[in-house]
Amino acid sequence: MDIQKLESLLKSVQSRKMSVEDAIFQLKALPFKDLGFARVDHHRSLRKGFPEVVWGEGKTSAQILSIMKQLRSRGENILITRLEERKAKAIQKTFPKSRYYPRSKVLTHLTHPLKSGGKGVILVITAGTSDIPVAEEAALTAQFMGNRVETLYDVGVAGIHRLLSERKKLEKARILIVVAGMEGALPSVVGGLVDRPVIAVPTSIGYGTSFGGIAALLAMLNSCATGVAVVNIDNGFGAGYMASLVNRM
Amino acid sequence: MDIQKLESLLKSVQSRKMSVEDAIFQLKALPFKDLGFARVDHHRSLRKGFPEVVWGEGKTSAQILSIMKQLRSRGENILITRLEERKAKAIQKTFPKSRYYPRSKVLTHLTHPLKSGGKGVILVITAGTSDIPVAEEAALTAQFMGNRVETLYDVGVAGIHRLLSERKKLEKARILIVVAGMEGALPSVVGGLVDRPVIAVPTSIGYGTSFGGIAALLAMLNSCATGVAVVNIDNGFGAGYMASLVNRM
Amino acid sequence: MDIQKLESLLKSVQSRKMSVEDAIFQLKALPFKDLGFARVDHHRSLRKGFPEVVWGEGKTSAQILSIMKQLRSRGENILITRLEERKAKAIQKTFPKSRYYPRSKVLTHLTHPLKSGGKGVILVITAGTSDIPVAEEAALTAQFMGNRVETLYDVGVAGIHRLLSERKKLEKARILIVVAGMEGALPSVVGGLVDRPVIAVPTSIGYGTSFGGIAALLAMLNSCATGVAVVNIDNGFGAGYMASLVNRM
Amino acid sequence: MDIQKLESLLKSVQSRKMSVEDAIFQLKALPFKDLGFARVDHHRSLRKGFPEVVWGEGKTSAQILSIMKQLRSRGENILITRLEERKAKAIQKTFPKSRYYPRSKVLTHLTHPLKSGGKGVILVITAGTSDIPVAEEAALTAQFMGNRVETLYDVGVAGIHRLLSERKKLEKARILIVVAGMEGALPSVVGGLVDRPVIAVPTSIGYGTSFGGIAALLAMLNSCATGVAVVNIDNGFGAGYMASLVNRM
Amino acid sequence: MDIQKLESLLKSVQSRKMSVEDAIFQLKALPFKDLGFARVDHHRSLRKGFPEVVWGEGKTSAQILSIMKQLRSRGENILITRLEERKAKAIQKTFPKSRYYPRSKVLTHLTHPLKSGGKGVILVITAGTSDIPVAEEAALTAQFMGNRVETLYDVGVAGIHRLLSERKKLEKARILIVVAGMEGALPSVVGGLVDRPVIAVPTSIGYGTSFGGIAALLAMLNSCATGVAVVNIDNGFGAGYMASLVNRM
Amino acid sequence: MDIQKLESLLKSVQSRKMSVEDAIFQLKALPFKDLGFARVDHHRSLRKGFPEVVWGEGKTSAQILSIMKQLRSRGENILITRLEERKAKAIQKTFPKSRYYPRSKVLTHLTHPLKSGGKGVILVITAGTSDIPVAEEAALTAQFMGNRVETLYDVGVAGIHRLLSERKKLEKARILIVVAGMEGALPSVVGGLVDRPVIAVPTSIGYGTSFGGIAALLAMLNSCATGVAVVNIDNGFGAGYMASLVNRM
Amino acid sequence: MDIQKLESLLKSVQSRKMSVEDAIFQLKALPFKDLGFARVDHHRSLRKGFPEVVWGEGKTSAQILSIMKQLRSRGENILITRLEERKAKAIQKTFPKSRYYPRSKVLTHLTHPLKSGGKGVILVITAGTSDIPVAEEAALTAQFMGNRVETLYDVGVAGIHRLLSERKKLEKARILIVVAGMEGALPSVVGGLVDRPVIAVPTSIGYGTSFGGIAALLAMLNSCATGVAVVNIDNGFGAGYMASLVNRM
Amino acid sequence: MDIQKLESLLKSVQSRKMSVEDAIFQLKALPFKDLGFARVDHHRSLRKGFPEVVWGEGKTSAQILSIMKQLRSRGENILITRLEERKAKAIQKTFPKSRYYPRSKVLTHLTHPLKSGGKGVILVITAGTSDIPVAEEAALTAQFMGNRVETLYDVGVAGIHRLLSERKKLEKARILIVVAGMEGALPSVVGGLVDRPVIAVPTSIGYGTSFGGIAALLAMLNSCATGVAVVNIDNGFGAGYMASLVNRM
Repeated sequence: MDIQKLESLLKSVQSRKMSVEDAIFQLKALPFKDLGFARVDHHRSLRKGFPEVVWGEGKTSAQILSIMKQLRSRGENILITRLEERKAKAIQKTFPKSRYYPRSKVLTHLTHPLKSGGKGVILVITAGTSDIPVAEEAALTAQFMGNRVETLYDVGVAGIHRLLSERKKLEKARILIVVAGMEGALPSVVGGLVDRPVIAVPTSIGYGTSFGGIAALLAMLNSCATGVAVVNIDNGFGAGYMASLVNRM
Repeated sequence: MDIQKLESLLKSVQSRKMSVEDAIFQLKALPFKDLGFARVDHHRSLRKGFPEVVWGEGKTSAQILSIMKQLRSRGENILITRLEERKAKAIQKTFPKSRYYPRSKVLTHLTHPLKSGGKGVILVITAGTSDIPVAEEAALTAQFMGNRVETLYDVGVAGIHRLLSERKKLEKARILIVVAGMEGALPSVVGGLVDRPVIAVPTSIGYGTSFGGIAALLAMLNSCATGVAVVNIDNGFGAGYMASLVNRM
Repeated sequence: MDIQKLESLLKSVQSRKMSVEDAIFQLKALPFKDLGFARVDHHRSLRKGFPEVVWGEGKTSAQILSIMKQLRSRGENILITRLEERKAKAIQKTFPKSRYYPRSKVLTHLTHPLKSGGKGVILVITAGTSDIPVAEEAALTAQFMGNRVETLYDVGVAGIHRLLSERKKLEKARILIVVAGMEGALPSVVGGLVDRPVIAVPTSIGYGTSFGGIAALLAMLNSCATGVAVVNIDNGFGAGYMASLVNRM
Repeated sequence: MDIQKLESLLKSVQSRKMSVEDAIFQLKALPFKDLGFARVDHHRSLRKGFPEVVWGEGKTSAQILSIMKQLRSRGENILITRLEERKAKAIQKTFPKSRYYPRSKVLTHLTHPLKSGGKGVILVITAGTSDIPVAEEAALTAQFMGNRVETLYDVGVAGIHRLLSERKKLEKARILIVVAGMEGALPSVVGGLVDRPVIAVPTSIGYGTSFGGIAALLAMLNSCATGVAVVNIDNGFGAGYMASLVNRM
Repeated sequence: MDIQKLESLLKSVQSRKMSVEDAIFQLKALPFKDLGFARVDHHRSLRKGFPEVVWGEGKTSAQILSIMKQLRSRGENILITRLEERKAKAIQKTFPKSRYYPRSKVLTHLTHPLKSGGKGVILVITAGTSDIPVAEEAALTAQFMGNRVETLYDVGVAGIHRLLSERKKLEKARILIVVAGMEGALPSVVGGLVDRPVIAVPTSIGYGTSFGGIAALLAMLNSCATGVAVVNIDNGFGAGYMASLVNRM
Repeated sequence: MDIQKLESLLKSVQSRKMSVEDAIFQLKALPFKDLGFARVDHHRSLRKGFPEVVWGEGKTSAQILSIMKQLRSRGENILITRLEERKAKAIQKTFPKSRYYPRSKVLTHLTHPLKSGGKGVILVITAGTSDIPVAEEAALTAQFMGNRVETLYDVGVAGIHRLLSERKKLEKARILIVVAGMEGALPSVVGGLVDRPVIAVPTSIGYGTSFGGIAALLAMLNSCATGVAVVNIDNGFGAGYMASLVNRM
Repeated sequence: MDIQKLESLLKSVQSRKMSVEDAIFQLKALPFKDLGFARVDHHRSLRKGFPEVVWGEGKTSAQILSIMKQLRSRGENILITRLEERKAKAIQKTFPKSRYYPRSKVLTHLTHPLKSGGKGVILVITAGTSDIPVAEEAALTAQFMGNRVETLYDVGVAGIHRLLSERKKLEKARILIVVAGMEGALPSVVGGLVDRPVIAVPTSIGYGTSFGGIAALLAMLNSCATGVAVVNIDNGFGAGYMASLVNRM
Repeated sequence: MDIQKLESLLKSVQSRKMSVEDAIFQLKALPFKDLGFARVDHHRSLRKGFPEVVWGEGKTSAQILSIMKQLRSRGENILITRLEERKAKAIQKTFPKSRYYPRSKVLTHLTHPLKSGGKGVILVITAGTSDIPVAEEAALTAQFMGNRVETLYDVGVAGIHRLLSERKKLEKARILIVVAGMEGALPSVVGGLVDRPVIAVPTSIGYGTSFGGIAALLAMLNSCATGVAVVNIDNGFGAGYMASLVNRM
């Protein structure tokens, strides 16, 4: 259901071709076509302008397939995150053209070409190689949302010259996603080098007192650099989505 | 020191009117005119395009005055945050045209009119009335950075109709700052209603298990809404700055 | 042992047909028929008016069977929670008429029809689909305690219109159980919409800073809505039980 | 604004004496008569059936007086919680008939007699004498909401016979509020003795590892007794309100 | 090496039959007969009067066997705690007369009869059946140290009459070990009933906010009862040992 | 009320000179002579054999005086802990013979000489000089309970020879109270040197990551020494009481 | 790339045989020979004077082999930490002369003899036998960095004489690494006995309130001994590296 | 008491001019000249080679004066840390030549010139100006221990060029103390730039999620740079002492 349909419905109300009750009924019924276990929320497409994204964790292959079929029947592009490889393989039997990225556990299925939506480049940076899975989730999300994405991996602060030697790449980006575990210092340094918004993503990489990403999260929340905002630990998707919203502006 | 000065310096190097050593010397010496206790960082103006902001907490009135005089001598507009009323009064003796906002503990001093930089409206929302001081810090920062700012206060989720009745205001905003303490749920609801970036600011408002804002922070980091990024507890300035960066895009 | 038996025993004491010592002996001996590893507490039935519920976690199938047989011999209905599927299958060999709910890991065995005890409808609401197992534990518990139960799943706050479109269901309920993980904001919104008691159940659904349900728990404890009380993380049983106590009033 | 007014407004819409736009306008405008700093929410009275309660902490005397005057002009009874004695004295100059309870920091002002709403007795119990201020906040809230309230103070678990000797009082209550700091064990014991709902209130009483009430909170959330739900640390008001909702049923 | 040997050595020094250097050499060399990976500390037997106890966790069967052989060669009784069943079976091939307790993961091997050392009865109490493994570790340790031990299991505070009906058993005990998970309230109640020392043992039994025993630990540390001291979570051995030290007095 | 009175009462029941109801009435009424705000618990004296101790924190001087007068009228010795100096001075006007210890904030009032109850010496040890206030609370409590107490202060583990040079004192003690803040290592070392029970008391002495005594508490709970049990942070009274219970054995 | 190469490059710039741009290009290009997933940082060798160390955790065997081949081609000695045995076996097929230490999960491959770099002995001490894997990681790292290393295992504070009897070994060391879990007290005692720097390594050994090494970490950070600095939990490598830096001085 | 005295004492024993008992007596008696409340530990001077440092917090002026007089009588130089200005002024009446540093709350009193002990320069770096008090405590301690100290303040990572422009200063240092609050990232960056040991000092500077220095502490413990070890939050003294030990090597 797109905005045109909504407008025509409302005009039918205005012109009394449709009663208010019927209008309310249709508005309520349409978007929540109940699948028994999950409401696929077509309103979100109206509100955010992006297709629905499916969170794969904790859902069975059968549940995901059911959602995907409904979305496909509406001609939507589909992005599934946190999907275990085992489930991806089961899904690809029904959706053979879907593509699975095992490192970031993302699956995409396109029914029509992605539209370009972002105005500039989103740069995804990681401190270490272990942070790449989260970064890839962010990058794939941003690409799926219609953005050009570049990456710059393994430029952590203990070898600051590695980052500084890529300054052109930093300055070219319109918005930056900085992914780091352990001490989580990279967003502060990057935020001090650029005049663009930085989305910081703490990762659960580390051991001992990294406490599954809390050390990195705290460092990012306490950044002495300005222009840094933070998402949940390992939330590559959230960072990619946020950056996409900003890059459309 | 602005970009023009930097370029002419570099061209002098290229044309060998200035040795590389001298260039490096000037570049290093100029921006950090050492005040004995703090380096006023004029490079930041180069990098971010915004004037320096002074963090007032933990600095004496004398220290702040010294920084302000140097900034004024360069013709900069000045924003001071976290400034106790007692210090503000001392400062206003030397800077009588400066303006102090006691609720948010912000002081501004303008040497020239603020330039408009933002492209749209930044909307600052609070859940309760106790969150207003942090919201005002965000709003003043964004205004100081050249943005139009609107506010919508006391629309917390326990009376959801109060928020919903202001939907037009929500939809008009280009970027939203949502400030909430206690259970910190408001950014999730707002994020679900708009298709614009939401900067969430947890506040230390609450008691018992609010743990000085941790409850609100965790709620915001775990938001089920997309397009939400978070700053430190009570960090109105950081949210206003981040929103300003985005609103210039 | 029911209240009638207790009264007749006490009257025998009064009329000196039974010595006090004997009375005490019987009172003490009867209710704790020792199974070697667990005291099945028949006093609880006296006190609470509900049959014994067995906590399945950490007990072997053999231990559970032993308890079930004793309860069956007294003609009690049986509810077992947190029972792994593997153990349930072993138990169903001996209790073939028992029913197992794999999603919520609940097993029930009825020796006589459930008596209706609650005066109105208990509505069980979840924020997401992943919260359903905990919700189902609550719903089954309340049904087992003699209540009519309705459910409303996947109406989280990021799509607030989904909840609002079900307002009639909300208003019809006499008591509401609201189950949510991640940011745990749903009980606050629901609590603001109804004038009935809300039992909030945080779930361990989420990742990173959800900290296994702590984020949701804190949000619920700090709810700005009135009429909200909270049970332990994932404690669907506790919420169902509490709601049943209230619904009898 | 009461339900009658709402119904007549809606009937005016139905009979086309009022346009929908006007109706919406009135509905939105009326309830939020903006006081500049806080929206006094008259919808809440509609929804919950109780008058507005004002949270005194963090508000100035002037702000509270402004809210009280508006509420008085509508003929509402007023309850203010967390009000420092200094502010209470300032308020009593304008509201000389208001009554202040220094132990619990509660102020009440009655414009008409309290209506009896609850069906039975609410019993408020404390573990120690230091828990009484929180208990009193709960008791006053429940009385203000129209309930009969009894109290039983200083019956902590280390002297279990003190509690047991009051068993009649326990059994007479329709709902119980149990207030405890330190190890927070009392709700578990009480919950095991009665077949009525128990609202547990942890207090910040204690030292060292009581961590400002966390020890008591955790004990209550982990209660092995059934029929126990928990509110925030020191949240006597919340417990009194919840109990009032239940006691109306 | 026993005290007689030590005295004769020291007298040899006094009488100059042995040089001080030699004495020091022997004293240092004897007790630490190095096994390559662990120093079996025979001094401890001197100091505490109890035989060495071996902590089984993290040691291989081969390492444990090596230690056991050395201890056996000195005629010591052996107690091994936290020993997985798999390792116990391997050990019993070499020590067929040793006895393994799978519930508490304790293995004992006696080379001579246990001497009675304690003056009274040590009573081990649990709140629930799930706490029994930890209680059994405490009971076996105390028996091994020469004490008479009685047990009282599954008498948690939610059914306080179960505990009160065993009051004679409580009063007969010279020292009590109280084992509880979840809300950890039992030691407070027991401490209020007896005039004997109570050793409280929190267990990791529970879920959600029990946080692996932290809730119980905090409750015990904050006990409002006097005469209660606490050991580490699940530390049945430590409680049994402490009680044995006290019971010798 | 002492045990003789209780026995005579019970014999009156047995011989039917008193009805059971009257007996119950007297038993219940006598011990809880209600002071309005606190139940002075004379049962405790029956149960524990020690007089009542009053916790001074959070009580007004007037409340404490009221309790003291009632206790004095019964001829009890009185110990008040956590009493601020200001309150102590007010009390000493009415109880001029009472003695106040400002370092540990303890006040004692004797109506009859202390009876010796302990069989041996209780040794109170501190790691640093800052731990002495807590140690003194423990020492005074133990003395008040009738024990001989010795002290050994400032023998922390960073200068281990200071402790070792006092080995005789260690070995002479029948039970040891070890008080330490910061890293809390002293109980482990002492526990390794003696074959007597060690009561470990963490103190809130330290800064930064001492977290108000948590570091010391955790160290003590994780002690690799046997025969160590722990009380709450800064709980000198609890340690002194526990040691007194043990020393009577 | 070694310092000679860098100097000759810079002299080529000085003598204008190479343009600055080319120089920058080479400097940037050379050290980060991109392997696709990880930048092997040859600059680090320049900066620190030690060869690169590879963190094995989270890397596949194929990734590690690729890095190793590149390092071998440059004639570097290789140290890999946190390498699971399974991966080590795969690597040893290609690098048959490499040596794997299963206890500490370290693999070394030498292409040329280790150069001696340290001036004195580094002594690695553990509190218990369970701490040895972490200690071995430290010892192997220090040896690989060219130091003489001695070890002293299982000398925890509960048997303080075991440590004291090795005082000569302690005094001979130039720098000490002290590894301890549980209560983490050993570095404080060692720090009090020697006048040399102590690197403290908390381990995750323990249970219950050891919280995976937090108890030991806090104890070490709060050490009352001077000359103690701390690394992350289980970070044997970091301690060995730090000690090597110091021992070169 | 110095090493010469100790040797002559031991030779007197060897030559039987002094009995062993007398020797032990003197050794024990001499170093602990008991001041009643604190043992001034002259052994430490023997062991560490540095004079005693007095921790001023929690000691009264009178206590400190008593310690200072004893130390002065032995001709020792004195360093007092954490001394409030009020106490310093009281002390300076008796010790007029002592010098007080109000920013770092350090007082020094020299009875003889400081001996130079360190071999190179210790560089103390801070991230912000608010970290300077802690840095000054470190710097003064190191100077007092006989080291040349240089400082580099306010070079935090958000303006990384400020640090990089001081690279020569970094490279000249033999050991570096890096002091930072907020996100605590500076030690990682510095550790990546130098090949010298870095002592990292987290400070309690920050707000909200800085949690009084925990964010900075965790960042430092999780540093991806090698050669970094950490001391307690705000422990400037500990860092200065550790650096002094290393700089003597």
